Amino acid sequence: MQTDLFESDHELFRESVRGFVTKHVVPKLEMWDTDRLIDRETWRAAGAQGILGLAVPTEYGGPGETDYRFRVAIQTEIARVGASALQSGFSTNDDIVLNYLLRHADDDQKSRWVPGFVTGATIGAIAMTEPGAGSDLRSITTTARRDGDHWVINGAKTFITSGILADLVIVFAKTDPGAGSRGFSLFVVEDGTAGFSRGRKLDKVGLHAQDTAELAFDDVRVPAANLLGEEGAGFAYLMQSLPLERLGIGIAAQVSAEAVLDWTLAYVKDRTAFGKRIGEFQGLGFTLADLQTAVEVSRAYLDRCVREYNSGRLTAVDAAKAKLWATELQGRVIDSGVQLHGGYGYMMEYPVAKAYIDARIQRIYGGTNEIMKEIIHRDLMKG
Amino acid sequence: MQTDLFESDHELFRESVRGFVTKHVVPKLEMWDTDRLIDRETWRAAGAQGILGLAVPTEYGGPGETDYRFRVAIQTEIARVGASALQSGFSTNDDIVLNYLLRHADDDQKSRWVPGFVTGATIGAIAMTEPGAGSDLRSITTTARRDGDHWVINGAKTFITSGILADLVIVFAKTDPGAGSRGFSLFVVEDGTAGFSRGRKLDKVGLHAQDTAELAFDDVRVPAANLLGEEGAGFAYLMQSLPLERLGIGIAAQVSAEAVLDWTLAYVKDRTAFGKRIGEFQGLGFTLADLQTAVEVSRAYLDRCVREYNSGRLTAVDAAKAKLWATELQGRVIDSGVQLHGGYGYMMEYPVAKAYIDARIQRIYGGTNEIMKEIIHRDLMKG
Amino acid sequence: MQTDLFESDHELFRESVRGFVTKHVVPKLEMWDTDRLIDRETWRAAGAQGILGLAVPTEYGGPGETDYRFRVAIQTEIARVGASALQSGFSTNDDIVLNYLLRHADDDQKSRWVPGFVTGATIGAIAMTEPGAGSDLRSITTTARRDGDHWVINGAKTFITSGILADLVIVFAKTDPGAGSRGFSLFVVEDGTAGFSRGRKLDKVGLHAQDTAELAFDDVRVPAANLLGEEGAGFAYLMQSLPLERLGIGIAAQVSAEAVLDWTLAYVKDRTAFGKRIGEFQGLGFTLADLQTAVEVSRAYLDRCVREYNSGRLTAVDAAKAKLWATELQGRVIDSGVQLHGGYGYMMEYPVAKAYIDARIQRIYGGTNEIMKEIIHRDLMKG
Amino acid sequence: MQTDLFESDHELFRESVRGFVTKHVVPKLEMWDTDRLIDRETWRAAGAQGILGLAVPTEYGGPGETDYRFRVAIQTEIARVGASALQSGFSTNDDIVLNYLLRHADDDQKSRWVPGFVTGATIGAIAMTEPGAGSDLRSITTTARRDGDHWVINGAKTFITSGILADLVIVFAKTDPGAGSRGFSLFVVEDGTAGFSRGRKLDKVGLHAQDTAELAFDDVRVPAANLLGEEGAGFAYLMQSLPLERLGIGIAAQVSAEAVLDWTLAYVKDRTAFGKRIGEFQGLGFTLADLQTAVEVSRAYLDRCVREYNSGRLTAVDAAKAKLWATELQGRVIDSGVQLHGGYGYMMEYPVAKAYIDARIQRIYGGTNEIMKEIIHRDLMKG
Repeated sequence: MQTDLFESDHELFRESVRGFVTKHVVPKLEMWDTDRLIDRETWRAAGAQGILGLAVPTEYGGPGETDYRFRVAIQTEIARVGASALQSGFSTNDDIVLNYLLRHADDDQKSRWVPGFVTGATIGAIAMTEPGAGSDLRSITTTARRDGDHWVINGAKTFITSGILADLVIVFAKTDPGAGSRGFSLFVVEDGTAGFSRGRKLDKVGLHAQDTAELAFDDVRVPAANLLGEEGAGFAYLMQSLPLERLGIGIAAQVSAEAVLDWTLAYVKDRTAFGKRIGEFQGLGFTLADLQTAVEVSRAYLDRCVREYNSGRLTAVDAAKAKLWATELQGRVIDSGVQLHGGYGYMMEYPVAKAYIDARIQRIYGGTNEIMKEIIHRDLMKG
Repeated sequence: MQTDLFESDHELFRESVRGFVTKHVVPKLEMWDTDRLIDRETWRAAGAQGILGLAVPTEYGGPGETDYRFRVAIQTEIARVGASALQSGFSTNDDIVLNYLLRHADDDQKSRWVPGFVTGATIGAIAMTEPGAGSDLRSITTTARRDGDHWVINGAKTFITSGILADLVIVFAKTDPGAGSRGFSLFVVEDGTAGFSRGRKLDKVGLHAQDTAELAFDDVRVPAANLLGEEGAGFAYLMQSLPLERLGIGIAAQVSAEAVLDWTLAYVKDRTAFGKRIGEFQGLGFTLADLQTAVEVSRAYLDRCVREYNSGRLTAVDAAKAKLWATELQGRVIDSGVQLHGGYGYMMEYPVAKAYIDARIQRIYGGTNEIMKEIIHRDLMKG
Repeated sequence: MQTDLFESDHELFRESVRGFVTKHVVPKLEMWDTDRLIDRETWRAAGAQGILGLAVPTEYGGPGETDYRFRVAIQTEIARVGASALQSGFSTNDDIVLNYLLRHADDDQKSRWVPGFVTGATIGAIAMTEPGAGSDLRSITTTARRDGDHWVINGAKTFITSGILADLVIVFAKTDPGAGSRGFSLFVVEDGTAGFSRGRKLDKVGLHAQDTAELAFDDVRVPAANLLGEEGAGFAYLMQSLPLERLGIGIAAQVSAEAVLDWTLAYVKDRTAFGKRIGEFQGLGFTLADLQTAVEVSRAYLDRCVREYNSGRLTAVDAAKAKLWATELQGRVIDSGVQLHGGYGYMMEYPVAKAYIDARIQRIYGGTNEIMKEIIHRDLMKG
Repeated sequence: MQTDLFESDHELFRESVRGFVTKHVVPKLEMWDTDRLIDRETWRAAGAQGILGLAVPTEYGGPGETDYRFRVAIQTEIARVGASALQSGFSTNDDIVLNYLLRHADDDQKSRWVPGFVTGATIGAIAMTEPGAGSDLRSITTTARRDGDHWVINGAKTFITSGILADLVIVFAKTDPGAGSRGFSLFVVEDGTAGFSRGRKLDKVGLHAQDTAELAFDDVRVPAANLLGEEGAGFAYLMQSLPLERLGIGIAAQVSAEAVLDWTLAYVKDRTAFGKRIGEFQGLGFTLADLQTAVEVSRAYLDRCVREYNSGRLTAVDAAKAKLWATELQGRVIDSGVQLHGGYGYMMEYPVAKAYIDARIQRIYGGTNEIMKEIIHRDLMKG
């Protein structure tokens, strides 16, 4: 069963995204992996094409389009060509960083920071995770200390998506050690600020084109105007951002699973062995049937989540379910996809191989799937 | 995430079904299992309550309600009390036998046979499976031979739901051995017809209240007016009936899984060990989180299938996916549900125990799940 | 790969067990299920055949055979005919109750109680579980209070295997509420003792021939000579008994899985559909290959455990692994076995159907598999 | 439960291998991955240490050690440091290429080719797979045509382990198109033979240090003395070689799974979150318990297979089970290991990350696991 999420305008938009992908993404995929970086030109081209910063209101130069189905259209077309690192970068910008800014920045801040999210001039990053604090964010040790009209930030962050390129980093820091969950705040640190430096670009299993990095903050002074929202509200803001962040990962996982299954079906229909198309072997066919069913079932749920999000009703718990379910599905589909490609599934020239190494992070970042289970578990035990 | 399938009229109807269930089903559950039969009085009460034969047009005494969501409402309430045998009997009547009659019977036949499906006076059965022919229906050996104005039926059927009580049996028989898939036809055999006899009531793993039986046809003469639809079209009719049949099983599986998970959650919140509610143990909690997520994801797909069915667009392949997915889910949820109940999960006084033995047939009947996979597999290889 | 556990004497013994099974078990299987009880005559016949109380030293009338491979031989032959309830009864007697007596009874006690375990005159039971205390044995509320030369026992037990027939019950009771895990002791309560009564025979999912019951102890006075081992050592004794108890369940699970797979292979080689033996369909064949491999792999581990047990080296943790692994395997093999039998898998006349309802308790009793996981988990975190 | 496979001499040998690994492998791991090649010096050092060519008889310079447990010792120590590419290279040499030579080469051939397998001077490769023929070896198109005292080989091979470095390649070629499975023969092609060229070094998901390559044979003339064994016996030889080849992969998978689980346990005992060691969380602990149990169970089977191999009784079917089971286990353990490492599991500096990309080929090469299932399936249906 095909998704029925899109209406004609979403389909039209998807066509235009496909044009962008064909022209600007496909020819550069290998280069990005070799360079271990996506060039800024691509971001600008995406901005010019109108596929960045959709949710930015018109007053800040955006289309003010909050129907998340348009983001799904973008993700679908990027997934079709396996450009996972670009997916991840765009999602970080639009589903996470921009979302924080649109929700919590004041008008001046929006004027300063938001327009670049539409044009592709600004690449954003969110700096939460630390070497000693992953899922357990309350245990971070990065601090921001008030000093007159400034805040002084000290600490180290790791696993930061777009860490090397980022022009603007939202930093999660402790502002009041004695205030419990009210003791964290968010700050915007801009490229070039003294004391802010990029560490190693991390050598990862996959997502090679994604410039994941360590960031260091050594007496970084930012003006008070760089505090995002209210002091002490950082943890609460973070909680509010989770539905969109997790929905974004869930959708990326879903459309990736769909793309990989399509490639795999094409392969097993083309490849022959023992006198027939290998997909005709029932042993493989049962696997294919399972995967196809699983993908369609999952899609129905993800589509439902998108609609709930559009109506403002998607809860953090339901988004956790979407993230958990879709990324587990993606992992399973890709693993089977590799297997069904035989030896070719292990060769990087096949997109399924790239998907295999790229996708492994999906079950880990945005909150590990074990954290998702614990969130759902707690919710179940509430009643 | 809760299902959003129902509107207010479905909810109202569901309330009325709940009334019927409370009054007529719950008090009799044990008796039915002991008797290995559901009493006819229950069927009549259901008819009186307006929960049978929904799709029957007004001219034949029914409400002409083809919105399948009302059937979902019925199944939901029956599942909540674990009355699987009643579920199976009602589904056989409404989703299968009645569906054949409404699609293929002529006006006279409808007048004769359909009204009883509304009042509960008529219990129907469908006789396809034979001792030597389960999934492979082309290999059945029951024959119907034309003899003047009559047809003479000979053969044996098995695994017939409602086989003991059935007033009206639709028999799938070979009418032309040389005509391949055009060589099968459907006949209505009524209770009391000479040569038609009930065999053993089968001793099953569960569904004890369901009178599954063997049927024997020994020179059974039925008038030509008992041929259903066209001669030779039996196999085609059977194919057409599959979407609803499988959707019905899928929905029954889904609402059963939901009910069992509810019972299980209630249990793990109530039962304590080692100083806390057992549901608080994270090892169990991760399982609960998985199951809850799986149940909600599956529901989104089943709801989508119901909407597609209502619009006349549900394909046999998509219905196969629904049947496969939901019954596998049901099996998994119930197995875990038993486990999470500990020793009590093995005691028949707990509904989860009854669900365990009742539900095992769901992955087998209506076409085994292996057949579902093969159907989906073939469809995938078509393109 | 076949097991290489047995040497020629085990094979010879196995032949003799097979004789017993053919003569005394197979003809009575249905009767036992109907009666919901195994007749005592069968126990006596087993005693006469020399297959009970193997470990009983010669001075108490037994063969003094502590090589557990002979018990494996017994279990294998009983599993081959699916006599799960007898398996469970014999295991309770030999692997649990007798094991306690041989380890902890003094010479007088042994003289009184042990000989009947060889002849089959004595059926034993172990009364640990209570309605409010399953896995968490420290929370039991049955008490034994010293009163002169007697102990007075009060409390209720449930899920007691052989509860109705038992001539001798080892009762786990609290003797010192303030002594923590040193506050529990074991008592032997004999049939006919005043105040000791049998409650309901429990209505279970399966194992119908096994007389699982509730037991009540209402001011039951037993002489001090009925204290088993030392006062306060009950919990420690219980821990010491776990390796054999769990190994026994693990072996029963393994040989059951092997038997069910044999039945299933025979079925799929015999049954035809769509023009070939159904086992030839690769979709089913992959499942069969998985199961066969899993069964052989598991067997290698269980055989290793038996050898370790024979050398006195099997730890409680490794026995927990055996119980966990083999019962999960058994569950999976039987579930698939039912499925591969199609509709016949749901019919009680097929042994796979009986295995389905009987085996479900295996993952629950003897400590649920979740408890096994926690035991293994703790052991892993020790290092 | 620890393996009991080794005796003291195997342990001693293992110590010496550990010395080699510490000195020659660990310091070079990164370099090999960067170079995408293992230096020949390492092979020579291994030869000097006595860990290559164990099975070579003393007359050809080897120790004549056919007890496979010594190979297991080697694999265990290599797996402990995650040197998968070296593992794969050594296995190809010793378990595959050398095995063909020792079985089928005549004395002259042995004198020419075998000694280098002991010293590490010779790196061997086996050239079976072709771009259009993976599992279905009968469909290969590489031919060898007799021309006087020579054979002329034409064709292309792919996925050849050690393809770039190989000094000696055993080529599987069709010598008689009309002779069915008797139409294939094996030839030794040595480095430097005219017309034999190496194609691309393939860009793979992992195993980067392994020089997997394409090979081209363009009118390659080899003397008749390079025919291995009898003309037309190639397919039969290949079948005979399968037990050892698959056992080798199975053992490599098993010891890798054990190593990864060790790393993972160390990580979860060290890493803290939410105030405790993360391994203490029961949700993770249940997974750890499952994995530990699975690893030990699998080990018992693999150990049994080694013993069977040593006795000359390991069948191709049982070796297929070992390969299937152990590589599936390895995949599962590593996938969970990555997950339990959280973000660090995706960082190449952690050995679990390298294991993740390296191990994916194990379920594919040496015959895909689907082929293993079909082999087991056919064997089951024979009886």
